[in-house]
Amino acid sequence: MSVNSPVSPARPYYVPVANEKQVFKAACRQGLSVVLKGPTGCGKTRFVEAMAYDLKRPLVTVACHDDLTTADLVGRFLLRGGETEWVDGPLTRAVREGAICYLDEVVEARQDTTVVLHPLADHRRQLPIERLGVTLDAAPGFCLVVSYNPGYQSVLKDLKDSTRQRMVAIEFGFPAPDVEEKILATEAAIDHERAAELVRLGQAIRRLETGGLREVASTRVLIAAGRLIAEGLTPRDAARAAIAGPLTDDSAVTRGLVEMIDAYVDDQSSLDD
Amino acid sequence: MSVNSPVSPARPYYVPVANEKQVFKAACRQGLSVVLKGPTGCGKTRFVEAMAYDLKRPLVTVACHDDLTTADLVGRFLLRGGETEWVDGPLTRAVREGAICYLDEVVEARQDTTVVLHPLADHRRQLPIERLGVTLDAAPGFCLVVSYNPGYQSVLKDLKDSTRQRMVAIEFGFPAPDVEEKILATEAAIDHERAAELVRLGQAIRRLETGGLREVASTRVLIAAGRLIAEGLTPRDAARAAIAGPLTDDSAVTRGLVEMIDAYVDDQSSLDD
Amino acid sequence: MSVNSPVSPARPYYVPVANEKQVFKAACRQGLSVVLKGPTGCGKTRFVEAMAYDLKRPLVTVACHDDLTTADLVGRFLLRGGETEWVDGPLTRAVREGAICYLDEVVEARQDTTVVLHPLADHRRQLPIERLGVTLDAAPGFCLVVSYNPGYQSVLKDLKDSTRQRMVAIEFGFPAPDVEEKILATEAAIDHERAAELVRLGQAIRRLETGGLREVASTRVLIAAGRLIAEGLTPRDAARAAIAGPLTDDSAVTRGLVEMIDAYVDDQSSLDD
Amino acid sequence: MSVNSPVSPARPYYVPVANEKQVFKAACRQGLSVVLKGPTGCGKTRFVEAMAYDLKRPLVTVACHDDLTTADLVGRFLLRGGETEWVDGPLTRAVREGAICYLDEVVEARQDTTVVLHPLADHRRQLPIERLGVTLDAAPGFCLVVSYNPGYQSVLKDLKDSTRQRMVAIEFGFPAPDVEEKILATEAAIDHERAAELVRLGQAIRRLETGGLREVASTRVLIAAGRLIAEGLTPRDAARAAIAGPLTDDSAVTRGLVEMIDAYVDDQSSLDD
Amino acid sequence: MSVNSPVSPARPYYVPVANEKQVFKAACRQGLSVVLKGPTGCGKTRFVEAMAYDLKRPLVTVACHDDLTTADLVGRFLLRGGETEWVDGPLTRAVREGAICYLDEVVEARQDTTVVLHPLADHRRQLPIERLGVTLDAAPGFCLVVSYNPGYQSVLKDLKDSTRQRMVAIEFGFPAPDVEEKILATEAAIDHERAAELVRLGQAIRRLETGGLREVASTRVLIAAGRLIAEGLTPRDAARAAIAGPLTDDSAVTRGLVEMIDAYVDDQSSLDD
Amino acid sequence: MSVNSPVSPARPYYVPVANEKQVFKAACRQGLSVVLKGPTGCGKTRFVEAMAYDLKRPLVTVACHDDLTTADLVGRFLLRGGETEWVDGPLTRAVREGAICYLDEVVEARQDTTVVLHPLADHRRQLPIERLGVTLDAAPGFCLVVSYNPGYQSVLKDLKDSTRQRMVAIEFGFPAPDVEEKILATEAAIDHERAAELVRLGQAIRRLETGGLREVASTRVLIAAGRLIAEGLTPRDAARAAIAGPLTDDSAVTRGLVEMIDAYVDDQSSLDD
Repeated sequence: MSVNSPVSPARPYYVPVANEKQVFKAACRQGLSVVLKGPTGCGKTRFVEAMAYDLKRPLVTVACHDDLTTADLVGRFLLRGGETEWVDGPLTRAVREGAICYLDEVVEARQDTTVVLHPLADHRRQLPIERLGVTLDAAPGFCLVVSYNPGYQSVLKDLKDSTRQRMVAIEFGFPAPDVEEKILATEAAIDHERAAELVRLGQAIRRLETGGLREVASTRVLIAAGRLIAEGLTPRDAARAAIAGPLTDDSAVTRGLVEMIDAYVDDQSSLDD
Repeated sequence: MSVNSPVSPARPYYVPVANEKQVFKAACRQGLSVVLKGPTGCGKTRFVEAMAYDLKRPLVTVACHDDLTTADLVGRFLLRGGETEWVDGPLTRAVREGAICYLDEVVEARQDTTVVLHPLADHRRQLPIERLGVTLDAAPGFCLVVSYNPGYQSVLKDLKDSTRQRMVAIEFGFPAPDVEEKILATEAAIDHERAAELVRLGQAIRRLETGGLREVASTRVLIAAGRLIAEGLTPRDAARAAIAGPLTDDSAVTRGLVEMIDAYVDDQSSLDD
Repeated sequence: MSVNSPVSPARPYYVPVANEKQVFKAACRQGLSVVLKGPTGCGKTRFVEAMAYDLKRPLVTVACHDDLTTADLVGRFLLRGGETEWVDGPLTRAVREGAICYLDEVVEARQDTTVVLHPLADHRRQLPIERLGVTLDAAPGFCLVVSYNPGYQSVLKDLKDSTRQRMVAIEFGFPAPDVEEKILATEAAIDHERAAELVRLGQAIRRLETGGLREVASTRVLIAAGRLIAEGLTPRDAARAAIAGPLTDDSAVTRGLVEMIDAYVDDQSSLDD
Repeated sequence: MSVNSPVSPARPYYVPVANEKQVFKAACRQGLSVVLKGPTGCGKTRFVEAMAYDLKRPLVTVACHDDLTTADLVGRFLLRGGETEWVDGPLTRAVREGAICYLDEVVEARQDTTVVLHPLADHRRQLPIERLGVTLDAAPGFCLVVSYNPGYQSVLKDLKDSTRQRMVAIEFGFPAPDVEEKILATEAAIDHERAAELVRLGQAIRRLETGGLREVASTRVLIAAGRLIAEGLTPRDAARAAIAGPLTDDSAVTRGLVEMIDAYVDDQSSLDD
Repeated sequence: MSVNSPVSPARPYYVPVANEKQVFKAACRQGLSVVLKGPTGCGKTRFVEAMAYDLKRPLVTVACHDDLTTADLVGRFLLRGGETEWVDGPLTRAVREGAICYLDEVVEARQDTTVVLHPLADHRRQLPIERLGVTLDAAPGFCLVVSYNPGYQSVLKDLKDSTRQRMVAIEFGFPAPDVEEKILATEAAIDHERAAELVRLGQAIRRLETGGLREVASTRVLIAAGRLIAEGLTPRDAARAAIAGPLTDDSAVTRGLVEMIDAYVDDQSSLDD
Repeated sequence: MSVNSPVSPARPYYVPVANEKQVFKAACRQGLSVVLKGPTGCGKTRFVEAMAYDLKRPLVTVACHDDLTTADLVGRFLLRGGETEWVDGPLTRAVREGAICYLDEVVEARQDTTVVLHPLADHRRQLPIERLGVTLDAAPGFCLVVSYNPGYQSVLKDLKDSTRQRMVAIEFGFPAPDVEEKILATEAAIDHERAAELVRLGQAIRRLETGGLREVASTRVLIAAGRLIAEGLTPRDAARAAIAGPLTDDSAVTRGLVEMIDAYVDDQSSLDD
C-alpha cells in the first residue's frame, strides 16, 4: 500500500538531531539512495516528509510487507471494461515524476522487491519494466529512500549486502529531551511541564535496556499519552493506556512500568463519561 | 468474514469493569486506534458493541484468520456480467462511513493485513487503495479497534511493535463476581442463586492457574451452562457439557473439574427426552 | 465434500449411551453449538443422523480436510455459460434452511474455516458472506455440530479456545457390551452368539491401551468383521482382515492380535471361491 | 493419472498365494472397501486386474501422488469452445459405472483426497460432488480398493485411522518359490531352469533383511532380468542391470550383490551388438 | 524444457566403455525403461544421442527441475485466438512418435512427474491423459530413459523404489585414459600430447576423492580447458579457468588445484588481447 | 527485471586486474559460458559492460531473485486487446540477437531457472521454448554470463555442479590500490589525495577479515563516500554514512569503524544546509 503526497503546503514539523539533513540532501543531489536505520516511532517518516518539503519533491510512501511483490511496486495490467490496461505501481510513478520514493520497513518485503531496486539504486538509475518491454530512466530529482529497524532483523529477514552497499546510511535515535519535550507539547497540545514529565518517564523507560520490554517507549507513544491527557484522562491512566499497554503483555513487567508511571507522573485530573 | 452492524436500537448489555469506557472514548475523539487485550469470552466484542451504540457509530466486525489478505479487508475487483466491478472490503466501508472497524484476534491475520493498517492507525488516518489509485481519508468518527489475547501469542504470531506503538491499549479481565452474576442471570434467564453458584465455580476454576487446562472458564461458558440449565438439564450435567468439556480433553483434568462441579453445584432437577 | 440428507424416512439405528440426547437437544433449542468428542468409528455420525431425524431437521455433513477453504463452506461464484453465478456452499445452505450442519473432524480444516464459524456459533448466529455483501441470520432450527478426536490433536492441529468456548461438548466412547452386541447383530446380520464373540474380542483389544496399536478396535471394524463372516469367511479370517489389518502394520503386533483372535474367536466355517 | 480398463478379454495371469481372493470377493459383495498392503512389485496391480476380470467389472486405476487433488479424482469444469463443461474424474466415472476403482499408493495423495473417500468407504457409499451440487450413490458393483506399502510410511505420510478403519485389509508378500518360478518362465519367456536360478537369487537377496539395500528384489525385477536374458544378454549382465542396479547406489553393497549374482547365476551366453 | 532432435544425420561421437550399448538395446527391444546412473559431464547425454542414432529413433530430451509439473510433460490446454487448444507435452510427443524420451536428472522433478511414468514404465506401456480423457498406448520403439547422479541424492530427493524397480540400470563412469584423450583431441581440436596432459591432470584430481571438492573433474571440464587452449590461452590459465574455478570456491582448495595444474601442465604459450 | 543495453557509444570505464579479458574473450569465441565469481561492488557489472563494448555485442542484464521463473527469462503469452500475444523474455531476446546475457547473482534464482540454461550452456547452444513448440539455436555472438558471490552460498542456495561444470570461471577481487584510487578519483570527481585516503581506509577495513562485519568495504561504497565529499560533506561524515553505515548495524563494530575512519581520514571541510 502506498501513499502519494504532493508537495505539502506547510513544512512538516521536524527538528533535526544531527547532520541527517546534510547527508540526505548530499545523497539526493548525487543521485545516491538512502537507508534510514532506527527504532519504530522515532520520526523517520516525518523526516522524509520534511525533506520532501525542503527539496520540493512529491513523496510516495510504501509500507512494505511479506506479500509485497515486484508487481505491487512496478505496476500491472488490469482488466477494465474488457480491455487490459497498464497501471503504474508506486515505484514507477515516483520514477516518472522524479519523486522521493520511501519504502518503509523494506526488509519486510520479499527479496524480489529489493532486487528490483538494484539498477535504480546504483549508477544506472534505471527501472526496467519487463511487462511493458521498456526501461525507464529515473527523472531528475528521483530519490530512493528505505527504512529499517536493525533491532528487528533476523537471519531470515535482512537486507542483502548487495542492496545495502548501494545506499548511504543515516542512523536515527530518539530526540534529545528538550527537543522531544517541544515535539510533545506541539503534537499533543499539552503544556510544557506535562510534556517534560512524559519525556522524563520515556527516558527512564529507555534506560531499562528492554528487560522484558519488547521495545522502548518511542516518541510516538509519548505523544499518544499526551493526547489522552488533553482529552481529560488522568496522566497516569493516559500513560498506562498509551505507554505501558503497548510496551508489554507481561504482568510483572506491567507492574514495574506502572510503578515508574506513578513515580514520574503527577496525577491531578479525572474524567467522567 | 465481516459483520456489518448499523447503530443498534437498544444498548447492548455491558457493565464496565474499570475506566475502559473513558479510555476508549478519549482515544476515539483523538482519532487514536485502540487495542483490546484479554482472554477469550470476557466480553471484548460486547464492549465494542456498547461503545458503538454510545458513540452512535456503525460497527464493522472482522474475524481475523491466517488467510485473511489485504484484499479481503480493502476490497477487490469482481467479474459481474462480463464487467469488472470494484467491491469495497469491510475496512474500506468503515473508512468511508466513519464506522468503528473491529478486527477480532488481529494477530491471526497475515502481516500484510496489519501493515496496511499503519497509515490508518497513525496521524495520517489514510487508507491507500492501490488498485483504484486513490488514497481515502478516514471519515470523521472512524475508529480502528483490534483485539488480541496475550496468552496465545508465540514468536511466530505476534503484533509487530511498529503496529502496537500506533495504538492505545485497554486491558480486559473477567468481571467482578457480582457483575458476572448479574450478567449470567440476564443472559441465561436463570435465577440469581443459580447464577451465583456458577460464578463461584468459575472463579474456583480461574484460581487453578490453568494446571492442565487450556484456558480458564470464561464468562461465555458460564452463560452456556446457565442456558442448558434453563433448558431443563441438571446443573451438574450442564456444567460438565458447557464448562468441563470445552476446557480440557485430558481425562485426569476432566475428573478434577467434575469433582469441582460436584462440590460447587447443587443438583436437583432432571430431564427426560 | 458435503453430503446433504433430507429428513430420512426411518430413524437411523442408534442406541444412546448416556445423556447425549438430552444435552444435544437442549443445546439445539438454545441455539448453542455442539462439539462431539470421541474416537473414530464409535457412532458420532450415526448419532447426528438420529438427532436430525428426531428434530425433523435436514442434515448437511462436511468431511473436513487440510484444503477445505472458507469458500468451500460458504460458496463461490462459478462461471456458467459466460455468466458468473453464485453457488451456496454447504454451510450457507444449512444456514438458510435451518438444517443441522455437521463438520466432521473439524480440526483437519484450515483455521480460516473455523474462524468463519465464530459469529455463527455465538449469540449472533450470523453468517457474513463477504462476496455477496450480505450477512445471513441463521434460520430457526439451524444447529452447528462439529466432531473431533482428542487422541489425534497435536500442537499444530487443534481447535482454538475461542472456538471451543463457543460450544457445548458431548463426549463419546464405545457402547456398553450388550449395546454393541445388539448393534453388531443388527448391522452385520449375524447371530447374537457370534456378535458377542466379536464384542469380547473388541473389548480385549481396547484393554491393551494401544501398545503398538494406532487406535483401538472401533465398533465399525467389528461390524466389518461380522459382515465378512456373513459372507462366508471363517470368523478368524474375517477378524484378521477387518480388525487386525486396519489396526497395525507392525508384524510383531500383528502376531499378538492374531493370537488374541484365535483365543477369542471360534473357527468353524470355511469357504471356497 | 488414471488408466481405464474395460473388462479384459483374457484373465490376467495371477496365481493366488493365500485367501486373498476370498477376502476380496466377500468385501466386494458386502460393499466394503479394501486396502492392499505390501511391497512394490509383488503383484498387487495384477491381483486387482484379475479380480476385475473374475467379477466382470471395469477397472479404473489411479496412481496417487503429492499433487493429486480432490478435483483430479472427482472432476472439474473445463473451458471448451467458450463453454464450461464438466468432466468426470476417474473416481466419479467408477462410481457411475460400478467399476473397481484402484488408488495405487494412496498415502502419496494429499489428505483431502483420502477424506473425500470417507462417505464412499462407509455404509453411505455416496460421492458428493460439491461443484455440481449433487450426491451420487455408487452403482452396484462399485468397489474402492487402495494400496499402500507399509515399509514407506512415515509420520508425515500415513493413512489416517479414520480412513483405515473404513477398510478391510489384505496383506501381500512375494509368491512362494515354485509360483514365482512359474511366473518368471511365463512372463519373461525363459526356460524353467533359468527361472529357478533367478528365483533362488531373489530369495537369497530377500534373506539379507535389507542391510544397505533400499528394498528387496521384487518379482518385477526378476522378470526384468529374465527378459534381458531372453534378449541375449548373459545372465550375470542381465542380473546386474535389472536387479543390482535398481536395488542400490552404494558401491560396497553393489559389490556384495555382484558376488551373490556370480554365486547364484551360471553364465554361458554372450552377445555382440 | 525439452529439446526435440530428429534422427541426426551423423552418428554423435561416442566411444563405449563397457556393455552399455548391449544392455540399452536389449532393454529397448523388450520395452523396458532404462535409468542411467553416473556423475555430471561423463557423457550420458552423448550416449543417449548415439543410441537414438543407432536405433533410428527421434530423441526428446527433458531437463528436469523442481517446478516441472505433470502438465509440463504431458501437455496442456492453451488459449489461442479465443479457442482452447491442446498442446502435447514432450512425453506425449515421444509416446505418439515412438521416440526415445530422455528425462535428464529425473530426481529433480516433483514426485507427481515420476509417478506419471509408472504405467509407461511397466508392462502396460500406457500414458493416460486425464484432461483429454484418453489413454495412449506407446508407439513401437518408444523407450523411456532417465538419468540421475547417485552422488546428489538426499533423503528429500530420491527416486522412489517403485519407480526404480520399473527400470533397468546402466552405470556410467569416466572413460579410460586413452579413450578420454581421444575425446579431448577431437572435441577441443588440440594435439594428442596436450590432450594427454589434461587427462593426466583430470585423473590426478579424480584420485583426490573430493577432499573439499564438490565433484571431480568431468570429461566436460577437460574439454573446456582444451578449447580455451585452442583459443590461445596458456594451458595453465585455461586449466585454472575451466577446471579449478568450477570445482571449488574454497581458496585453500583452489591453491591445491593450482599447484596440481602447475605440476601436470606445461606452460608455453601466451596471448595478448 | 532485465536491462537491455545496446552497444554503448563510449567504452565503460574499466581497468583490468589480471587476465580476465583474455579468458572472457576466448570463452566467448568458443561459445563457452562464463561464471564471474566475486564479492559485491567489485566491478563485475562494469566488466561485463566493457566486454560487451569491446565485442560489439548488445548486453541484456537480469538481476536474479527468489521469484524469478523460467517464464520471466524465456517469455510468456500476454493478453492484449483480447488476443494472446507472445512476449520474448530477456534470455530469448539475447539468444535471438546474439547478445551477451548477464544473469546477476544467479544463485538467487530458482533451480528451474538455472536448469533451463543447460542446453544453452553446453555444446548444444539451444533454447527450447516449450510454449511455442520451437527450439532456438543461439545466434552467433550469444554468450551466457552469470555472476555469483561465493561468500553468500549456503547449502540451500548454491549453483548445481551440473551447471558449474558447463561454465568457465573468472575470479574477481578488489582492484589494486593504485587502480582503485584512479577509479575513485574518476567516478567521484575528487582529487587523488582524497581518493588515496579512502582507498587506504578501505584496505584497512578489508584486512579486518569481517570480524563482526557483514562484508568488507567494496569499491562501490568508497565511491559513494567520495561523492558525498564532492557534495561538501566532511570526509569523516561522508565515510560514516557511506562506509560504516552500510557495513554494520552493531554499535560496538560501528564504534570501531568510526575510530578507523578518524584515524585514516583527515577532516577539513564542513557544510551548512
